[in-house]
Amino acid sequence: MDPYRVIVGKRDLRTYTDQAIPTGALFRILDAARRSGSSRNRQPWEFIVVTDREQRARLARCGRFTAHLATAPSVVVILIESPRDQFDAGRCAQTLMLAAWSQGIASCPATIHYDARAREVLGVGEGPVIATAVALGYPHPRGRGRIEGAALAILAGRGRKPLEALVHWDRYGNRRAPAASA
Amino acid sequence: MDPYRVIVGKRDLRTYTDQAIPTGALFRILDAARRSGSSRNRQPWEFIVVTDREQRARLARCGRFTAHLATAPSVVVILIESPRDQFDAGRCAQTLMLAAWSQGIASCPATIHYDARAREVLGVGEGPVIATAVALGYPHPRGRGRIEGAALAILAGRGRKPLEALVHWDRYGNRRAPAASA
Repeated sequence: MDPYRVIVGKRDLRTYTDQAIPTGALFRILDAARRSGSSRNRQPWEFIVVTDREQRARLARCGRFTAHLATAPSVVVILIESPRDQFDAGRCAQTLMLAAWSQGIASCPATIHYDARAREVLGVGEGPVIATAVALGYPHPRGRGRIEGAALAILAGRGRKPLEALVHWDRYGNRRAPAASA
Repeated sequence: MDPYRVIVGKRDLRTYTDQAIPTGALFRILDAARRSGSSRNRQPWEFIVVTDREQRARLARCGRFTAHLATAPSVVVILIESPRDQFDAGRCAQTLMLAAWSQGIASCPATIHYDARAREVLGVGEGPVIATAVALGYPHPRGRGRIEGAALAILAGRGRKPLEALVHWDRYGNRRAPAASA
């Protein structure tokens, strides 16, 4: 498949089949995350791969929109060194999720709102910061069904803003593209 | 080309040829960025595409490691609504850069250390936060040559940490993968 189409077609999906992710595929996904770019090549990340069913159920109680962590066969928690590494965490998570997507594996990151509880569950002491928990699984044929709450369902259906509302040229507020790029 | 290999093979490159990026390719790159996932589908981003040579030269004086913004044919500045959107900015930037890479276009994000100066240059008033400036261009055959300063050269050559140093299983500190994922 065309790499551009894979990258642009990635959607965050929250419903998965029960099928486990083969260890080989999981390692390829983690290896892609590991090789992601970061500021000054600091690679400020570590990963906790959660496949144990009870651990996933506990993680699913660590945020407001985290129910899908219980039903995903694997979850990758991304830890960073400092809150200032959130931009690099986003790059890493996206690389991880696109590598998964290129192998037919869907994903959705979950914000961990209840940080103290998640630290307890995962055994993370002082030091590392929990950036996100990425659910991974094969997409369920029934699609995006199990979205928690009406609010999220509306948001998920909202689509994307049009490009012309987002793009400025050379200076903020200049909406006209230059005739030719020099 | 295999999409996984494109994603895992992406490197941050800072030296580009003089060749301009065709408008069609630029729009495909921006469209991929626009479609990137974000928390609650908020899409908290806007883009300033800087192709004007003088604007790029000014931007190149807005950070400590930003010289490559002057020599890249195009720069995409990513604005976000709040500093709390840095994770989503990272996801968006990575989608943008991988979409570019899938079309043979290299990239490297630059941290804007001198925020007030960049706001002046770009005409960004109160409100939007400058997350990053992504340089885009066709990779120079002489490779990663023009890296500023010995420190960065060393960092760029440092490669990546081994996976076994980064991965924990089910709980932090547990280095043994489970025999089989249930």
